[in-house]
Amino acid sequence: MTTKERVTALDLPMVDPLPPATRKYFDLCAEKLGLVPNVLKAYAFDIAKLDSFAAMYNDLMLADSGLSKLEREMIAVVVSSINKCFYCLVAHGAAVRELSGDPRLGDMLVMNYRVANLDLRQRAMLDFAVKLTKSSATIEEADREALRQSGFTDRDIWDIASVAGFYNMTNRVASAVDMRPNEEYHASYR
Amino acid sequence: MTTKERVTALDLPMVDPLPPATRKYFDLCAEKLGLVPNVLKAYAFDIAKLDSFAAMYNDLMLADSGLSKLEREMIAVVVSSINKCFYCLVAHGAAVRELSGDPRLGDMLVMNYRVANLDLRQRAMLDFAVKLTKSSATIEEADREALRQSGFTDRDIWDIASVAGFYNMTNRVASAVDMRPNEEYHASYR
Amino acid sequence: MTTKERVTALDLPMVDPLPPATRKYFDLCAEKLGLVPNVLKAYAFDIAKLDSFAAMYNDLMLADSGLSKLEREMIAVVVSSINKCFYCLVAHGAAVRELSGDPRLGDMLVMNYRVANLDLRQRAMLDFAVKLTKSSATIEEADREALRQSGFTDRDIWDIASVAGFYNMTNRVASAVDMRPNEEYHASYR
Amino acid sequence: MTTKERVTALDLPMVDPLPPATRKYFDLCAEKLGLVPNVLKAYAFDIAKLDSFAAMYNDLMLADSGLSKLEREMIAVVVSSINKCFYCLVAHGAAVRELSGDPRLGDMLVMNYRVANLDLRQRAMLDFAVKLTKSSATIEEADREALRQSGFTDRDIWDIASVAGFYNMTNRVASAVDMRPNEEYHASYR
Amino acid sequence: MTTKERVTALDLPMVDPLPPATRKYFDLCAEKLGLVPNVLKAYAFDIAKLDSFAAMYNDLMLADSGLSKLEREMIAVVVSSINKCFYCLVAHGAAVRELSGDPRLGDMLVMNYRVANLDLRQRAMLDFAVKLTKSSATIEEADREALRQSGFTDRDIWDIASVAGFYNMTNRVASAVDMRPNEEYHASYR
Amino acid sequence: MTTKERVTALDLPMVDPLPPATRKYFDLCAEKLGLVPNVLKAYAFDIAKLDSFAAMYNDLMLADSGLSKLEREMIAVVVSSINKCFYCLVAHGAAVRELSGDPRLGDMLVMNYRVANLDLRQRAMLDFAVKLTKSSATIEEADREALRQSGFTDRDIWDIASVAGFYNMTNRVASAVDMRPNEEYHASYR
Repeated sequence: MTTKERVTALDLPMVDPLPPATRKYFDLCAEKLGLVPNVLKAYAFDIAKLDSFAAMYNDLMLADSGLSKLEREMIAVVVSSINKCFYCLVAHGAAVRELSGDPRLGDMLVMNYRVANLDLRQRAMLDFAVKLTKSSATIEEADREALRQSGFTDRDIWDIASVAGFYNMTNRVASAVDMRPNEEYHASYR
Repeated sequence: MTTKERVTALDLPMVDPLPPATRKYFDLCAEKLGLVPNVLKAYAFDIAKLDSFAAMYNDLMLADSGLSKLEREMIAVVVSSINKCFYCLVAHGAAVRELSGDPRLGDMLVMNYRVANLDLRQRAMLDFAVKLTKSSATIEEADREALRQSGFTDRDIWDIASVAGFYNMTNRVASAVDMRPNEEYHASYR
Repeated sequence: MTTKERVTALDLPMVDPLPPATRKYFDLCAEKLGLVPNVLKAYAFDIAKLDSFAAMYNDLMLADSGLSKLEREMIAVVVSSINKCFYCLVAHGAAVRELSGDPRLGDMLVMNYRVANLDLRQRAMLDFAVKLTKSSATIEEADREALRQSGFTDRDIWDIASVAGFYNMTNRVASAVDMRPNEEYHASYR
Repeated sequence: MTTKERVTALDLPMVDPLPPATRKYFDLCAEKLGLVPNVLKAYAFDIAKLDSFAAMYNDLMLADSGLSKLEREMIAVVVSSINKCFYCLVAHGAAVRELSGDPRLGDMLVMNYRVANLDLRQRAMLDFAVKLTKSSATIEEADREALRQSGFTDRDIWDIASVAGFYNMTNRVASAVDMRPNEEYHASYR
Repeated sequence: MTTKERVTALDLPMVDPLPPATRKYFDLCAEKLGLVPNVLKAYAFDIAKLDSFAAMYNDLMLADSGLSKLEREMIAVVVSSINKCFYCLVAHGAAVRELSGDPRLGDMLVMNYRVANLDLRQRAMLDFAVKLTKSSATIEEADREALRQSGFTDRDIWDIASVAGFYNMTNRVASAVDMRPNEEYHASYR
Repeated sequence: MTTKERVTALDLPMVDPLPPATRKYFDLCAEKLGLVPNVLKAYAFDIAKLDSFAAMYNDLMLADSGLSKLEREMIAVVVSSINKCFYCLVAHGAAVRELSGDPRLGDMLVMNYRVANLDLRQRAMLDFAVKLTKSSATIEEADREALRQSGFTDRDIWDIASVAGFYNMTNRVASAVDMRPNEEYHASYR
């Protein structure tokens, strides 16, 4: 690999050769997304870690939920904005642009979600994710009740918390190892 | 269930009956730990979510690593102390008391890890976890290099980051849903 | 004294021999509490300082007040939790466990008082103590009025402020000199 | 009393008549200072509280110490500047002007002590007081050692900590009850 | 120039000789104010910079506005209090004392504006300036509406924002170069 | 004007007709930039304010300086990133992309400047701008000396401080009035 292709600051090369199932998964990513997300390459030094990460990611971001896929990406970007995670802002900012068809929305969520013209439901969702990110110990029943008043079910509240929690994890892992996003994201869906 | 047994503030009952594999896993917990950790019961409203959580937990906390199991629990407690997560402080404080045989160490990590008489390696590990928790965007190569100077490999750095990241996730999920720890933890290994 | 008995990081030995009145006070502590609190030993390098500290402590924590002794200890623990003072959390956490007969309440106040199931009066009292600890300059008449609405008299408000203020002093003195609590506290009233 | 003479926001009138010893103490203040400090009037609703406060104040600020009286007042002002305590900044700002004969120094310590042209010893003393005020839990042996390197004894370190701690108490009590300084302080020693 | 007359920590002497228009402006200051404000001397190493600074200052602080000159100075002091800017607190604190005829008000705004007995309109104005200074990204329509409810026009809101913004600039320039206020300010209008 | 063209949340229409000199300036912008920056339209309700803003902007960002135009734009973006100013991040992010020819650099400075691969000189410049933005009162001689060691002259230090200060002003004005950037910026120079 050239320097340009460096994925993290750690010397943890991918298992070589990749196991067939992983190879197939990466090929599928390349086919559907046009790239293998660097985060998957970063985890591929240990297939058990890659698999548990991918399983959680797929469940949270792609499985059935009362939150749309766009809404889950919106949470990802807003949490990452607070944590100033370069990897996640680039990758999930692109996802918001793609899923919303609104490049301006992507920029707003990266820069300051308060300027976006959101409906009350989405604003309540993001306010909860922000409070959970900045001061989780101060969340109380009134905060959950505010989500219910905005139309969210208890299952939705679990999903908002889990997605916001997940990016508080990945933001920190990515920053800890200086993970770099695939360059293709920067210009995509502008 | 009685009020006393309430696990979270959300109305998300466990799948009933539990699938055989889950039933078996819970029975194994009860046999080995004397209890089924409430976090598992909380996730058991959706078996896919429970399974991805358990897989990641088991990989991070129990699989082979350059970090001892105690060291991983120490990171769990120190991260949870910053985030003031009641569930995780109670459950993982007990784990530190158990694995170290030193109840005072458990209290120190819950209250202020700086008062603990740690060797330089463990102190560097916890300082990194704290910085990652409080201001992950400011982590730079010098921080990783400090860990290497303290004797950690790049793989160890990944593990420190992953464990610290994981508790930044679970602290937030637990606080978001007001998850309550099993009462048995409070008095155990004192 | 052995290292184990070190009370602070400063080389300030107790007056030797202690004056008779101090000797008697320490003996009384040993008889009633089963130990001489290390904070008293720490101050005993200068009897005038010890006496003024003990006088203020006794007035605030033991004299008549509209606040129960348990409530005053609850303030002590919650203030110390914000300031992460190891000495005070250990010593006053034990006092909350003793006076309340509820070990879980002690852990809750040490970890995150918001999870405790408090009545509105005690919650208002602790919220005021927390605001006073974190941002005293922002206290205004509305904050005092909220206490009055919760049933506190002006004299009670003085006492809440004085107890919260006192632990903001002692937390800092204890942390400044690395004061260590008597080991007996850790396991007591669990 | 007229509104102008209101000392705090609480309805806690002074004991009337004052006990002879208190009367004498107040008369002595009036004679030596030209006024009875409002903080003493505020405490005079309960003579035991007044006495324990005055004893601690006198010991800390007036008794023998390796710190000059001016240095103790400098700590008082710098701590109060962080806590933005109106009462203490006015009263102790005047004391710094009086004891130093340098009105500009008083303003500097009220506004931003870093602009004052202090010798290294006094700067180290104030830096320690600031760290103790803002983040006491992070004080470690290196901080005490820095004071020793600047020429302070262990007894001096105790005194710096105690004075800084004391104003962290009084700042909070004063702000909690909206204590107002005697108007004479504003223009004195300008 | 003697050390006493040092205006900043940078070696940037005034253009010498000053252009006639600048000379005339400085003479006018000396005549009307009794001094040439050091900030003008600091900028006088580059006349274009001095002129653009003076033009903006004069427009914001002296031109017609729905805010009185005193109100604009009040904003200046409160913003500078948050930023702890020695130069601006000294210079504009004096201006508040002069324009209000109330030395105590000057001290209150320097120390903690919340203790000042302001009408609701001025309090709303200062609260907005404080929020804008501390966390401008959180300003939303509700904040502007609160100003309108307090009697401010949209033009007034622009002026409050511009004056508060201006001192957030000058506070930083002054602190960056260690700008020192003219000594005459300290004792003036006491 | 349509809603889409709303520039701020305030009802402050441009002077109509614009004075000839302003008209000419706006036409020049349209010709050279392809648009009239919304910030100029926002100020055009009062020509004196527009002129003083434009004069300062032009002097700081376009006049001769030891800092390149790109470097001044880099400071603008990094300061705006801390203050989360949507207007300035969009407009000056585009400027960084244009002047550097490196869209990735623009994203890095918007998201977290620490991930950019800067030379030591530019890193020192941005670190100073960040410290000045976050905690200007803590800037001391050592900070200026660090800039000198990185090759900056005293005049350069003035310029870094002035540019960083300026965006601390404009960020706040823009956020206070909800200023919206021209839509063309979002996709430009990607």
